[in-house]
Amino acid sequence: MKSENTVWHAQSVSRVMREQQKGQRGKVLWYTGLSGSGKSTIANAVDSKLHELGKHTYLLDGDNVRHGLNGDLGFDDAARIENIRRVAEVAKLFADAGLIVSTAFISPFRSDRDYARELIGVEDFVEVFIDTPLEVCEQRDPKGLYKKAQAGEIKHFTGIDSDYQKPANPEIHIKTAELSISQAVEQVTQFLKI
Amino acid sequence: MKSENTVWHAQSVSRVMREQQKGQRGKVLWYTGLSGSGKSTIANAVDSKLHELGKHTYLLDGDNVRHGLNGDLGFDDAARIENIRRVAEVAKLFADAGLIVSTAFISPFRSDRDYARELIGVEDFVEVFIDTPLEVCEQRDPKGLYKKAQAGEIKHFTGIDSDYQKPANPEIHIKTAELSISQAVEQVTQFLKI
Repeated sequence: MKSENTVWHAQSVSRVMREQQKGQRGKVLWYTGLSGSGKSTIANAVDSKLHELGKHTYLLDGDNVRHGLNGDLGFDDAARIENIRRVAEVAKLFADAGLIVSTAFISPFRSDRDYARELIGVEDFVEVFIDTPLEVCEQRDPKGLYKKAQAGEIKHFTGIDSDYQKPANPEIHIKTAELSISQAVEQVTQFLKI
Repeated sequence: MKSENTVWHAQSVSRVMREQQKGQRGKVLWYTGLSGSGKSTIANAVDSKLHELGKHTYLLDGDNVRHGLNGDLGFDDAARIENIRRVAEVAKLFADAGLIVSTAFISPFRSDRDYARELIGVEDFVEVFIDTPLEVCEQRDPKGLYKKAQAGEIKHFTGIDSDYQKPANPEIHIKTAELSISQAVEQVTQFLKI
Protein backbone atom coordinates (compact mmCIF):
# COMPACT_ATOMS: atom_id res chain seq x y z
CA MET A 1 0.00 0.00 0.00
CA LYS A 2 1.41 3.41 -0.84
CA SER A 3 1.72 5.73 2.12
CA GLU A 4 -0.98 8.37 2.31
CA ASN A 5 -0.63 12.03 3.13
CA THR A 6 -3.32 11.84 5.73
CA VAL A 7 -3.45 9.14 8.35
CA TRP A 8 -6.14 6.69 7.41
CA HIS A 9 -7.94 4.68 10.04
CA ALA A 10 -9.34 1.30 9.04
CA GLN A 11 -12.58 2.02 10.88
CA SER A 12 -14.97 -0.87 10.58
CA VAL A 13 -18.70 -0.34 10.35
CA SER A 14 -20.12 -1.47 13.67
CA ARG A 15 -23.41 -3.18 14.45
CA VAL A 16 -24.64 -0.02 16.16
CA MET A 17 -23.90 2.02 13.02
CA ARG A 18 -25.83 -0.46 10.89
CA GLU A 19 -28.74 -0.41 13.35
CA GLN A 20 -28.83 3.39 13.47
CA GLN A 21 -28.88 3.53 9.67
CA LYS A 22 -31.93 1.25 9.67
CA GLY A 23 -33.65 2.78 12.69
CA GLN A 24 -34.06 -0.56 14.42
CA ARG A 25 -32.35 -3.13 16.60
CA GLY A 26 -31.14 -6.43 15.13
CA LYS A 27 -33.26 -9.32 16.38
CA VAL A 28 -33.79 -13.03 15.81
CA LEU A 29 -37.38 -14.26 15.79
CA TRP A 30 -36.94 -17.99 16.33
CA TYR A 31 -40.17 -19.75 15.33
CA THR A 32 -40.63 -23.31 16.58
CA GLY A 33 -43.50 -25.75 16.20
CA LEU A 34 -44.66 -28.95 14.59
CA SER A 35 -44.77 -29.53 10.85
CA GLY A 36 -48.04 -28.01 9.69
CA SER A 37 -48.37 -25.80 12.78
CA GLY A 38 -48.30 -22.61 10.73
CA LYS A 39 -44.71 -21.49 11.42
CA SER A 40 -43.96 -20.45 7.87
CA THR A 41 -47.34 -18.84 7.35
CA ILE A 42 -47.07 -16.72 10.48
CA ALA A 43 -43.36 -15.97 10.01
CA ASN A 44 -44.10 -14.76 6.47
CA ALA A 45 -47.05 -12.68 7.65
CA VAL A 46 -44.96 -11.03 10.38
CA ASP A 47 -42.10 -10.47 7.94
CA SER A 48 -44.48 -8.79 5.47
CA LYS A 49 -45.94 -6.60 8.19
CA LEU A 50 -42.51 -5.51 9.43
CA HIS A 51 -41.41 -4.74 5.87
CA GLU A 52 -44.57 -2.71 5.34
CA LEU A 53 -43.68 -0.75 8.48
CA GLY A 54 -40.27 0.09 6.98
CA LYS A 55 -38.26 -2.47 8.93
CA HIS A 56 -35.34 -4.31 7.35
CA THR A 57 -35.95 -8.02 7.61
CA TYR A 58 -35.01 -11.42 6.28
CA LEU A 59 -36.52 -14.87 6.61
CA LEU A 60 -34.51 -18.08 6.85
CA ASP A 61 -36.54 -21.19 6.15
CA GLY A 62 -36.40 -24.55 4.46
CA ASP A 63 -36.71 -22.97 1.04
CA ASN A 64 -33.51 -20.95 1.17
CA VAL A 65 -31.44 -22.91 3.71
CA ARG A 66 -32.27 -26.59 3.46
CA HIS A 67 -31.17 -26.98 -0.16
CA GLY A 68 -28.37 -24.44 0.10
CA LEU A 69 -26.16 -24.07 3.16
CA ASN A 70 -27.54 -27.24 4.77
CA GLY A 71 -27.93 -29.23 1.57
CA ASP A 72 -25.20 -31.62 2.74
CA LEU A 73 -27.13 -32.64 5.86
CA GLY A 74 -29.53 -35.55 6.29
CA PHE A 75 -32.44 -35.92 8.73
CA ASP A 76 -31.11 -37.97 11.64
CA ASP A 77 -30.71 -36.39 15.07
CA ALA A 78 -27.03 -35.45 14.56
CA ALA A 79 -27.82 -33.76 11.25
CA ARG A 80 -30.77 -31.92 12.81
CA ILE A 81 -28.51 -30.57 15.54
CA GLU A 82 -25.94 -29.38 12.97
CA ASN A 83 -28.78 -27.94 10.89
CA ILE A 84 -29.95 -25.84 13.83
CA ARG A 85 -26.39 -24.87 14.80
CA ARG A 86 -25.77 -23.42 11.34
CA VAL A 87 -29.13 -21.66 11.26
CA ALA A 88 -28.31 -20.10 14.65
CA GLU A 89 -24.88 -18.96 13.44
CA VAL A 90 -26.31 -17.43 10.27
CA ALA A 91 -29.18 -15.78 12.16
CA LYS A 92 -26.58 -14.27 14.49
CA LEU A 93 -24.76 -12.77 11.48
CA PHE A 94 -28.01 -11.27 10.18
CA ALA A 95 -28.80 -9.73 13.57
CA ASP A 96 -25.25 -8.37 13.63
CA ALA A 97 -25.99 -6.85 10.20
CA GLY A 98 -28.83 -4.97 11.94
CA LEU A 99 -31.70 -6.97 10.45
CA ILE A 100 -34.74 -8.50 12.09
CA VAL A 101 -34.28 -12.06 10.92
CA SER A 102 -36.86 -14.82 11.31
CA THR A 103 -36.05 -18.52 11.34
CA ALA A 104 -38.85 -20.97 10.61
CA PHE A 105 -37.75 -24.51 11.37
CA ILE A 106 -39.38 -27.19 13.53
CA SER A 107 -36.35 -27.11 15.89
CA PRO A 108 -37.89 -29.80 18.07
CA PHE A 109 -35.19 -30.15 20.73
CA ARG A 110 -35.06 -27.80 23.70
CA SER A 111 -31.30 -28.18 23.97
CA ASP A 112 -30.84 -26.86 20.41
CA ARG A 113 -33.07 -23.86 21.02
CA ASP A 114 -31.29 -23.13 24.30
CA TYR A 115 -28.00 -23.37 22.39
CA ALA A 116 -29.30 -20.88 19.83
CA ARG A 117 -30.50 -18.55 22.59
CA GLU A 118 -27.11 -18.60 24.27
CA LEU A 119 -25.18 -18.21 21.01
CA ILE A 120 -27.31 -15.32 19.75
CA GLY A 121 -27.67 -13.72 23.17
CA VAL A 122 -30.80 -13.38 25.29
CA GLU A 123 -31.27 -9.71 24.41
CA ASP A 124 -31.55 -10.55 20.69
CA PHE A 125 -33.31 -13.90 20.81
CA VAL A 126 -37.09 -14.14 20.68
CA GLU A 127 -38.50 -17.65 20.82
CA VAL A 128 -41.91 -17.81 19.13
CA PHE A 129 -43.80 -20.99 19.93
CA ILE A 130 -46.38 -21.79 17.27
CA ASP A 131 -48.63 -23.94 19.40
CA THR A 132 -50.91 -26.09 17.30
CA PRO A 133 -52.13 -29.46 18.60
CA LEU A 134 -50.64 -32.48 16.85
CA GLU A 135 -54.13 -33.67 15.89
CA VAL A 136 -54.75 -30.41 14.03
CA CYS A 137 -51.39 -30.60 12.23
CA GLU A 138 -52.13 -34.21 11.25
CA GLN A 139 -55.53 -33.21 9.92
CA ARG A 140 -54.10 -30.34 7.87
CA ASP A 141 -51.08 -32.30 6.64
CA PRO A 142 -50.52 -29.77 3.81
CA LYS A 143 -47.60 -31.69 2.30
CA GLY A 144 -48.88 -35.19 3.05
CA LEU A 145 -45.89 -35.77 5.35
CA TYR A 146 -47.81 -37.10 8.35
CA LYS A 147 -49.46 -39.69 6.17
CA LYS A 148 -46.05 -40.81 4.89
CA ALA A 149 -44.58 -40.84 8.39
CA GLN A 150 -47.45 -42.94 9.71
CA ALA A 151 -46.91 -45.36 6.85
CA GLY A 152 -43.24 -45.56 7.84
CA GLU A 153 -42.08 -43.97 4.58
CA ILE A 154 -40.42 -41.07 6.45
CA LYS A 155 -38.34 -41.83 9.53
CA HIS A 156 -37.56 -39.49 12.44
CA PHE A 157 -40.68 -37.42 11.80
CA THR A 158 -41.41 -34.99 14.61
CA GLY A 159 -44.59 -35.89 16.48
CA ILE A 160 -44.70 -39.42 15.05
CA ASP A 161 -41.45 -41.25 15.79
CA SER A 162 -39.35 -38.31 16.96
CA ASP A 163 -39.95 -36.02 19.90
CA TYR A 164 -41.17 -32.43 19.90
CA GLN A 165 -40.14 -30.77 23.15
CA LYS A 166 -42.42 -27.81 23.81
CA PRO A 167 -40.76 -24.54 24.86
CA ALA A 168 -40.99 -24.13 28.62
CA ASN A 169 -40.89 -20.36 28.60
CA PRO A 170 -41.05 -18.85 25.09
CA GLU A 171 -41.02 -15.07 24.69
CA ILE A 172 -44.12 -15.37 22.50
CA HIS A 173 -46.68 -18.18 22.70
CA ILE A 174 -49.11 -18.25 19.79
CA LYS A 175 -52.08 -20.55 20.16
CA THR A 176 -53.15 -20.81 16.56
CA ALA A 177 -56.50 -22.44 17.35
CA GLU A 178 -57.61 -19.25 19.13
CA LEU A 179 -56.21 -16.59 16.79
CA SER A 180 -56.48 -15.31 13.25
CA ILE A 181 -53.24 -14.77 11.34
CA SER A 182 -53.49 -11.01 11.74
CA GLN A 183 -53.99 -11.42 15.49
CA ALA A 184 -50.90 -13.64 15.61
CA VAL A 185 -48.96 -10.98 13.70
CA GLU A 186 -50.12 -8.36 16.19
CA GLN A 187 -48.95 -10.51 19.08
CA VAL A 188 -45.41 -10.48 17.63
CA THR A 189 -45.28 -6.80 16.68
CA GLN A 190 -46.62 -5.85 20.12
CA PHE A 191 -43.90 -7.88 21.78
CA LEU A 192 -41.30 -6.09 19.61
CA LYS A 193 -42.95 -2.75 20.43
CA ILE A 194 -43.17 -1.99 16.71
CA MET B 1 -56.09 -20.80 12.33
CA LYS B 2 -59.48 -19.12 12.69
CA SER B 3 -61.07 -18.17 9.42
CA GLU B 4 -60.85 -14.49 8.61
CA ASN B 5 -63.50 -12.19 7.26
CA THR B 6 -61.25 -10.92 4.55
CA VAL B 7 -59.19 -13.18 2.36
CA TRP B 8 -55.60 -13.00 3.49
CA HIS B 9 -52.76 -13.65 1.08
CA ALA B 10 -49.53 -15.00 2.53
CA GLN B 11 -47.49 -12.65 0.35
CA SER B 12 -43.80 -13.07 0.99
CA VAL B 13 -41.42 -10.15 0.90
CA SER B 14 -39.38 -10.56 -2.29
CA ARG B 15 -35.78 -9.70 -2.98
CA VAL B 16 -36.88 -6.87 -5.27
CA MET B 17 -39.00 -5.39 -2.47
CA ARG B 18 -36.03 -5.50 -0.09
CA GLU B 19 -33.78 -3.92 -2.71
CA GLN B 20 -36.27 -1.15 -3.45
CA GLN B 21 -36.57 -0.39 0.26
CA LYS B 22 -32.79 0.02 0.45
CA GLY B 23 -32.37 1.79 -2.89
CA GLN B 24 -29.71 -0.63 -4.07
CA ARG B 25 -29.08 -3.99 -5.69
CA GLY B 26 -27.85 -6.92 -3.62
CA LYS B 27 -24.24 -7.79 -4.51
CA VAL B 28 -21.40 -10.01 -3.37
CA LEU B 29 -17.92 -8.47 -3.37
CA TRP B 30 -15.70 -11.54 -3.26
CA TYR B 31 -12.21 -10.47 -2.20
CA THR B 32 -9.39 -12.92 -2.86
CA GLY B 33 -5.65 -12.68 -2.27
CA LEU B 34 -2.75 -13.94 -0.22
CA SER B 35 -2.55 -13.67 3.55
CA GLY B 36 -1.23 -10.18 4.25
CA SER B 37 -2.27 -8.88 0.81
CA GLY B 38 -4.59 -6.29 2.30
CA LYS B 39 -7.94 -8.02 1.65
CA SER B 40 -9.44 -7.18 5.03
CA THR B 41 -8.07 -3.64 5.05
CA ILE B 42 -9.49 -2.82 1.64
CA ALA B 43 -12.75 -4.71 2.21
CA ASN B 44 -13.26 -2.76 5.44
CA ALA B 45 -12.41 0.54 3.75
CA VAL B 46 -14.88 -0.14 0.92
CA ASP B 47 -17.52 -1.25 3.42
CA SER B 48 -17.06 1.97 5.41
CA LYS B 49 -17.29 4.09 2.29
CA LEU B 50 -20.45 2.33 1.10
CA HIS B 51 -22.03 2.73 4.55
CA GLU B 52 -21.10 6.43 4.54
CA LEU B 53 -22.88 6.71 1.18
CA GLY B 54 -26.05 5.26 2.74
CA LYS B 55 -25.67 1.75 1.37
CA HIS B 56 -26.70 -1.28 3.41
CA THR B 57 -23.71 -3.59 3.73
CA TYR B 58 -22.20 -6.46 5.66
CA LEU B 59 -18.73 -7.97 5.82
CA LEU B 60 -18.05 -11.69 6.23
CA ASP B 61 -14.49 -12.44 7.30
CA GLY B 62 -12.45 -14.69 9.51
CA ASP B 63 -13.51 -12.76 12.61
CA ASN B 64 -17.22 -13.48 12.35
CA VAL B 65 -17.25 -16.72 10.31
CA ARG B 66 -14.19 -18.77 11.10
CA HIS B 67 -14.95 -19.21 14.79
CA GLY B 68 -18.71 -19.30 14.30
CA LEU B 69 -20.39 -21.04 11.37
CA ASN B 70 -17.14 -22.64 10.23
CA GLY B 71 -15.71 -23.31 13.68
CA ASP B 72 -16.04 -27.06 13.09
CA LEU B 73 -13.73 -27.02 10.05
CA GLY B 74 -9.98 -27.56 9.95
CA PHE B 75 -7.44 -26.29 7.44
CA ASP B 76 -6.85 -29.11 4.98
CA ASP B 77 -7.98 -28.80 1.37
CA ALA B 78 -11.35 -30.51 1.94
CA ALA B 79 -12.13 -28.22 4.88
CA ARG B 80 -11.10 -25.16 2.87
CA ILE B 81 -13.48 -26.16 0.10
CA GLU B 82 -16.34 -26.62 2.59
CA ASN B 83 -15.37 -23.32 4.23
CA ILE B 84 -15.73 -21.50 0.92
CA ARG B 85 -18.93 -23.35 0.03
CA ARG B 86 -20.59 -22.17 3.24
CA VAL B 87 -19.31 -18.61 2.81
CA ALA B 88 -20.74 -18.60 -0.71
CA GLU B 89 -24.11 -19.90 0.50
CA VAL B 90 -24.29 -17.31 3.28
CA ALA B 91 -23.18 -14.49 0.96
CA LYS B 92 -25.96 -15.54 -1.40
CA LEU B 93 -28.50 -15.20 1.41
CA PHE B 94 -27.21 -11.72 2.25
CA ALA B 95 -27.43 -10.63 -1.39
CA ASP B 96 -30.97 -12.05 -1.44
CA ALA B 97 -31.65 -9.89 1.63
CA GLY B 98 -30.72 -6.92 -0.57
CA LEU B 99 -27.37 -6.17 1.03
CA ILE B 100 -23.99 -5.48 -0.52
CA VAL B 101 -22.00 -8.17 1.25
CA SER B 102 -18.22 -8.49 1.15
CA THR B 103 -16.33 -11.70 1.78
CA ALA B 104 -12.66 -11.45 2.74
CA PHE B 105 -11.03 -14.88 2.65
CA ILE B 106 -7.90 -16.07 0.86
CA SER B 107 -10.04 -18.42 -1.29
CA PRO B 108 -6.93 -19.69 -3.09
CA PHE B 109 -8.52 -22.20 -5.49
CA ARG B 110 -9.98 -21.07 -8.79
CA SER B 111 -12.49 -23.92 -8.77
CA ASP B 112 -13.94 -22.69 -5.44
CA ARG B 113 -14.28 -19.14 -6.67
CA ASP B 114 -15.87 -20.35 -9.90
CA TYR B 115 -18.25 -22.42 -7.78
CA ALA B 116 -19.14 -19.32 -5.76
CA ARG B 117 -19.65 -17.30 -8.93
CA GLU B 118 -22.01 -19.90 -10.35
CA LEU B 119 -23.89 -20.39 -7.09
CA ILE B 120 -24.37 -16.67 -6.47
CA GLY B 121 -24.94 -15.83 -10.12
CA VAL B 122 -22.74 -13.82 -12.47
CA GLU B 123 -24.92 -10.72 -12.23
CA ASP B 124 -24.40 -10.51 -8.44
CA PHE B 125 -20.84 -11.78 -8.12
CA VAL B 126 -17.91 -9.37 -8.19
CA GLU B 127 -14.48 -10.98 -7.83
CA VAL B 128 -11.98 -8.52 -6.37
CA PHE B 129 -8.39 -9.68 -6.74
CA ILE B 130 -6.14 -8.06 -4.16
CA ASP B 131 -2.90 -8.45 -6.03
CA THR B 132 0.11 -8.11 -3.75
CA PRO B 133 3.36 -9.94 -4.54
CA LEU B 134 4.18 -12.83 -2.22
CA GLU B 135 7.48 -11.17 -1.27
CA VAL B 136 5.62 -8.10 -0.02
CA CYS B 137 3.14 -10.21 1.98
CA GLU B 138 6.04 -12.15 3.50
CA GLN B 139 7.79 -8.93 4.46
CA ARG B 140 4.66 -7.48 6.07
CA ASP B 141 3.66 -10.74 7.79
CA PRO B 142 1.36 -8.84 10.17
CA LYS B 143 0.39 -11.93 12.17
CA GLY B 144 3.75 -13.73 11.94
CA LEU B 145 2.10 -16.51 9.96
CA TYR B 146 4.61 -16.67 7.10
CA LYS B 147 7.42 -17.08 9.60
CA LYS B 148 5.56 -19.96 11.25
CA ALA B 149 4.73 -21.56 7.88
CA GLN B 150 8.36 -21.35 6.77
CA ALA B 151 9.38 -23.00 10.03
CA GLY B 152 6.90 -25.79 9.30
CA GLU B 153 4.74 -24.90 12.30
CA ILE B 154 1.71 -24.23 10.08
CA LYS B 155 0.88 -26.67 7.30
CA HIS B 156 -1.03 -25.99 4.08
CA PHE B 157 -0.19 -22.29 4.19
CA THR B 158 -1.09 -20.51 0.96
CA GLY B 159 1.98 -19.31 -0.92
CA ILE B 160 4.33 -21.55 1.08
CA ASP B 161 3.22 -25.18 0.85
CA SER B 162 -0.22 -24.67 -0.66
CA ASP B 163 -1.11 -23.10 -3.98
CA TYR B 164 -2.63 -19.69 -4.67
CA GLN B 165 -4.29 -19.69 -8.06
CA LYS B 166 -4.56 -16.14 -9.35
CA PRO B 167 -7.90 -15.08 -10.81
CA ALA B 168 -7.77 -15.24 -14.60
CA ASN B 169 -10.38 -12.59 -15.20
CA PRO B 170 -11.52 -10.83 -12.01
CA GLU B 171 -14.11 -8.07 -12.23
CA ILE B 172 -11.78 -5.83 -10.22
CA HIS B 173 -8.00 -6.15 -10.11
CA ILE B 174 -6.34 -4.09 -7.39
CA LYS B 175 -2.57 -3.81 -7.57
CA THR B 176 -1.85 -2.67 -4.03
CA ALA B 177 1.76 -1.72 -4.76
CA GLU B 178 0.55 1.03 -7.09
CA LEU B 179 -2.43 2.39 -5.16
CA SER B 180 -3.34 4.08 -1.91
CA ILE B 181 -6.20 2.61 0.08
CA SER B 182 -8.53 5.40 -0.95
CA GLN B 183 -7.64 4.83 -4.62
CA ALA B 184 -8.40 1.14 -4.15
CA VAL B 185 -11.76 2.05 -2.60
CA GLU B 186 -12.50 4.32 -5.55
CA GLN B 187 -11.72 1.50 -7.97
CA VAL B 188 -14.43 -0.62 -6.32
CA THR B 189 -17.08 2.10 -5.99
CA GLN B 190 -16.52 3.12 -9.62
CA PHE B 191 -17.03 -0.47 -10.74
CA LEU B 192 -20.27 -0.58 -8.74
CA LYS B 193 -21.26 2.81 -10.21
CA ILE B 194 -21.86 4.12 -6.69
